[in-house]
Amino acid sequence: MFSKYDVIVVGAGHAGCEAAHAAATMGSEVLLITMNLQTIAQMSCNPAMGGVAKGQIVREIDALGGMSGIVSDETMIQFRMLNRSKGPAMWSPRCQSDRMEFALNWRDKLERNPKVSFWQEMVTDILVKDNIVYGVKTSLGLEIHAKTVVLTNGTFLNGKIHIGEKNFGGGRTGESAAFGITEKLVSLGFESGRMKTGTPPRVDGRTINYEAMQEQLGDENPEKFSYTDTPKLEKQNSCWISYTNLAVHEELRKGFDKSPMFNGRIKGLGPRYCPSVEDKINRFAEKDSHQIFLEPEGRTTIEMYVNGFSTSLPEDIQYKAIRKIPGFENVKLLRPGYAIEYDYFPPTQLKLTLETQRVENLFFAGQINGTTGYEEAGAQGLIAGINAHRKAHELSAFILKRDEAYIGVLIDDLVNKGTDEPYRMFTSRAEFRTILRQDNADIRLTKKGYEIGLANKERLDRVEEKIKNSEELIHKLETTKLSPEEINPYLTKINSSPLREKSTISSLIKRPEIGIKELEEGNVLVQEITNTYTKEQKEQAEIKIKYEKYIEKELLMAEKIAKLDEVKLNTEFDYMALKSLSIEARQKLTAAKPMNLGQASRISGVSPADISVLMLYLGR
Amino acid sequence: MFSKYDVIVVGAGHAGCEAAHAAATMGSEVLLITMNLQTIAQMSCNPAMGGVAKGQIVREIDALGGMSGIVSDETMIQFRMLNRSKGPAMWSPRCQSDRMEFALNWRDKLERNPKVSFWQEMVTDILVKDNIVYGVKTSLGLEIHAKTVVLTNGTFLNGKIHIGEKNFGGGRTGESAAFGITEKLVSLGFESGRMKTGTPPRVDGRTINYEAMQEQLGDENPEKFSYTDTPKLEKQNSCWISYTNLAVHEELRKGFDKSPMFNGRIKGLGPRYCPSVEDKINRFAEKDSHQIFLEPEGRTTIEMYVNGFSTSLPEDIQYKAIRKIPGFENVKLLRPGYAIEYDYFPPTQLKLTLETQRVENLFFAGQINGTTGYEEAGAQGLIAGINAHRKAHELSAFILKRDEAYIGVLIDDLVNKGTDEPYRMFTSRAEFRTILRQDNADIRLTKKGYEIGLANKERLDRVEEKIKNSEELIHKLETTKLSPEEINPYLTKINSSPLREKSTISSLIKRPEIGIKELEEGNVLVQEITNTYTKEQKEQAEIKIKYEKYIEKELLMAEKIAKLDEVKLNTEFDYMALKSLSIEARQKLTAAKPMNLGQASRISGVSPADISVLMLYLGR
Ligand SMILES: Cc1cc2nc3c(=O)[nH]c(=O)nc-3n(C[C@H](O)[C@H](O)[C@H](O)COP(=O)(O)OP(=O)(O)OC[C@H]3O[C@@H](n4cnc5c(N)ncnc54)[C@H](O)[C@@H]3O)c2cc1C
Ligand SMILES: Cc1cc2nc3c(=O)[nH]c(=O)nc-3n(C[C@H](O)[C@H](O)[C@H](O)COP(=O)(O)OP(=O)(O)OC[C@H]3O[C@@H](n4cnc5c(N)ncnc54)[C@H](O)[C@@H]3O)c2cc1C
Repeated sequence: MFSKYDVIVVGAGHAGCEAAHAAATMGSEVLLITMNLQTIAQMSCNPAMGGVAKGQIVREIDALGGMSGIVSDETMIQFRMLNRSKGPAMWSPRCQSDRMEFALNWRDKLERNPKVSFWQEMVTDILVKDNIVYGVKTSLGLEIHAKTVVLTNGTFLNGKIHIGEKNFGGGRTGESAAFGITEKLVSLGFESGRMKTGTPPRVDGRTINYEAMQEQLGDENPEKFSYTDTPKLEKQNSCWISYTNLAVHEELRKGFDKSPMFNGRIKGLGPRYCPSVEDKINRFAEKDSHQIFLEPEGRTTIEMYVNGFSTSLPEDIQYKAIRKIPGFENVKLLRPGYAIEYDYFPPTQLKLTLETQRVENLFFAGQINGTTGYEEAGAQGLIAGINAHRKAHELSAFILKRDEAYIGVLIDDLVNKGTDEPYRMFTSRAEFRTILRQDNADIRLTKKGYEIGLANKERLDRVEEKIKNSEELIHKLETTKLSPEEINPYLTKINSSPLREKSTISSLIKRPEIGIKELEEGNVLVQEITNTYTKEQKEQAEIKIKYEKYIEKELLMAEKIAKLDEVKLNTEFDYMALKSLSIEARQKLTAAKPMNLGQASRISGVSPADISVLMLYLGR
Repeated sequence: MFSKYDVIVVGAGHAGCEAAHAAATMGSEVLLITMNLQTIAQMSCNPAMGGVAKGQIVREIDALGGMSGIVSDETMIQFRMLNRSKGPAMWSPRCQSDRMEFALNWRDKLERNPKVSFWQEMVTDILVKDNIVYGVKTSLGLEIHAKTVVLTNGTFLNGKIHIGEKNFGGGRTGESAAFGITEKLVSLGFESGRMKTGTPPRVDGRTINYEAMQEQLGDENPEKFSYTDTPKLEKQNSCWISYTNLAVHEELRKGFDKSPMFNGRIKGLGPRYCPSVEDKINRFAEKDSHQIFLEPEGRTTIEMYVNGFSTSLPEDIQYKAIRKIPGFENVKLLRPGYAIEYDYFPPTQLKLTLETQRVENLFFAGQINGTTGYEEAGAQGLIAGINAHRKAHELSAFILKRDEAYIGVLIDDLVNKGTDEPYRMFTSRAEFRTILRQDNADIRLTKKGYEIGLANKERLDRVEEKIKNSEELIHKLETTKLSPEEINPYLTKINSSPLREKSTISSLIKRPEIGIKELEEGNVLVQEITNTYTKEQKEQAEIKIKYEKYIEKELLMAEKIAKLDEVKLNTEFDYMALKSLSIEARQKLTAAKPMNLGQASRISGVSPADISVLMLYLGR
């Protein structure tokens, strides 16, 4: 019934969609198998993309030629650039999405990809011979063959939903859990674990008193995720802010004895940084109030998402407590919040390509690796899809380094450090965050995406134009001087200290209170220099001038570390025999099979002393 | 957590949506409970509305103030008026729908109805005391109270999906079955049965060779379902026609020993008029070929529906057989066809309001009553919703008679004759089909819909205008005469026999080959008379003139039968005591509790002789 595929992708969540799209775009024959074709790219939880560090990831996916950015742009109903008041390393794009449109749009994108085929069914087994995967088996007993297989099962593997004292099988509300895969992987020697995550109740927007809440508008000049020419967002919907109070907390506490989290019924570890509301009032007992965002689920639907109120307390407790939040006095629930427990596979069992160490040609991406979040899932899907394609075609591994992308940080962290609670990205996880900005993901990555056949020529041309022009502009700004007479009146006006002598424009830009835009206002010459450049090119030039020092410092550090990465290690090296290593290091290195000294140095449990031992041994 | 509702509707299929909308529009506080808010108004099977007799039903729903017509108009991608070459009693509107848009549009309509509230969960029990329902219980154990409850569970009650020798629980592919309700109803004394239906595989439209098939375009001037001013369909998609052949049949036969239908694994009776392809080649072994329609599932999706190829044979047999159909040589399947078995409740247990006889305030509508088809479901939902609302507000029953609507025929058949195979509507089921046309559903029903508070004033004004103007036009056509000189040249030209003397325009219209349009072409006077009337008004006038005789005859017959309906019967009458009735009649009358003599006469097993006995007894 099926031809032999290059790549089979199991699951059509964010990871699966990116994986299928990437592999197919690069030329693989791809079969995307998912339990329900009608739920392709469903957002399981909040109807939003991006946010701090996550927005950067979406831009990186886009820069490489993935689709999450484009789909987000085409279906968003509100956009905000978070942290605009901080340095550009912190700027983080975020949008509210129309949940239904997002899913339909993704499906449409995949359907337009001639190399993606579809099959609706549950995969219950993977076919492995001599530790090499060669296909999957479905619930109907069909065997489907492929050179490589990418598993992106999300929260579905033996998924169990909890609401108060009740629990039942399910991969997401209203959807069945998936069975068989965990058991097979464990029988092959994989280690599996259990995690949990939760979601808030959905409410009927017609029963909200918006007067009692604070309106949160979208940005006045909304930007976008994609570097391509996706449409500009014209009409925006608002979100709304309210706060819990002691009365809310008191109601919630009444359900604590029935909470599946507090009474131990849920074994899996939850996301520390996306806690349930009961977790928040329990852990931060001193706080009288927590912020609540009420977010629309779409352009027209009455359904609203109560961000900040994730809970698995009994539904009547949810109801009584939520009604104590200002604005929610008469609210009607549409569906209760719940928690879900599911199987994951500690990602230390993976290579940096997301191929498993144990079974060749088998890749894992997304929540199955212990992460949380659409963006993290999409990024892994992209990398797994790229590498599954490349492996199927006997091409070399595609790996992003920590100084190249948040995606590099993400996968490096997962593989080398592992995670025992749902992993989400933060800017603080990146040691090079001044380099890894949302504004330069294209500069960092599009060429790479183009070289592997994912990003198209048009994208490459665009970014090369951006690089060329912004550098040209920097050069002009660094070589053109303004005299005190020309600019001092303006500087005085904006309370910036006047010039004593002729100075370059770039030296003025280095002042915190001044940017290109200000100087354009204040001086005709600057206007003349900058007016042929786009907004993005000017922004790029300004950031590079302003943050030159920081950027240089990070680049230097990255170079040093890169030296360690250049020292290749034999992945079959017998660390156990090297007795001068600490025992822990010997064990961890044996398990992790690092490809180079840099990677070895980032494995948790491997100390700088151990690295010195290795260097000595290698004769360095 | 819940206020007390007037009406709870369980299930958001076609029946549930119409029921909720109707009751709420008339003023009831309605709670619509469904297992998944994301599948509201899902089309389980073919992406199409209307068709022979079914199209008439959609127009009737619309005329009464229901929404199926409007939703269909707003989301259709092709429209055809079937049977245009036959008499107007046979004209039947049919459209292809965009499956996703249809569902989203319905959801939007319900969300805009301020009196409809929503709750996502499985109902597992109904709350009954002293044979009166007072609410439902959900899988979380929530008790929700209401004055009346409408069950519209479709194919979900203990649903079991079959593909070849495999079977698993499910209410529709990818969706869980529903449990508990059948068991409770049976414990209350209800009789339940098992039925089955099937659906074809879905295929990837990119793998079809359209050259080998025949294109079926939409109508050149597409009409609509709704009498309101829904938008005119501008862009249409095509369907495609192909045929099975002996090679296809041979492949299919190879799976017969594994067919769940032929080897007895499926107990439920299937729809005789919507048979599976294996049924067709089995029952009509002499036929070498069956027609196959390939229908798009939406405006843009690659997914296509293979109408005529419903099957529950093993998926590899489906695959091998379908590839032998011209145009399908390289087809890829997206999901296999399957059959589903589910519980239904013989509808003889209902009153004509769709309230159950056994439990007061409990209503059944849709597939749960042993019907098949979206239109039949929607119609029942509408009537159940209307009556649930009216019962909750202590208003009289709303019942349509057999000479008023196909909906009347449908419900009268179900309640009085019952059904032991999935019931679908045909024009042949209606004895008054010249009256029950698609063009006059508004004339027949909108006033009724207005009087109960469902159809709005605008609709009423529209239809009154239509009635007034078409009657005025008929009068003019019946009183204005044309002379032989004026019209004979034209009549000769179109090969119609010339006039000998002055004749009324209407007498010419009675000729089969002539309509108003022809006369407009042939004569300026006619043009002057008709040019202020709309297309619909002219059509109405023409039909009434042309078919006057037939219409009168049917009206006369309807009047006679109405006399029987006027003879009220005491629903508590002790038929068992009336020994002059046949035993079968006594039993059937006792079970059915007819409200009048007309209804009694339509109960299967009650003979004209029995009716005479009753008339005698009643002193008539
Ligand atoms: C209740 C809930 C709450 C959440 N809360 C948060 C939160 O607060 N913050 C946050 O950042 N993230 C949250 N998430 C996580 C977020 O939804 C995921 O990180 C993201 O969706 C993961 O993407 P994925 O592609 O890995 O998997 P998913 O989006 O889960 O997609 C998995 C896909 O695989 C398919 N599938 C699974 N098994 C099989 C099989 N055997 N055969 C065929 N198909 C299969 C499924 O049908 C589905 O299409 C939550 C998720 C859930 C369910
Ligand atoms: C596989 C298949 C093939 C079919 N083939 C044909 C065909 O060839 N021709 C034809 O005319 N018709 C066919 N049909 C039938 C057609 O789909 C139905 O007639 C129509 O959908 C019935 O509408 P309904 O409203 O009664 O139920 P459905 O459309 O089935 O909707 C039932 C609704 O109730 C909800 N529900 C059920 N139980 C519960 C519960 N306990 N609690 C909460 N919610 C609940 C479900 O989630 C769903 O929303 C087919 C249906 C199926 C599934």
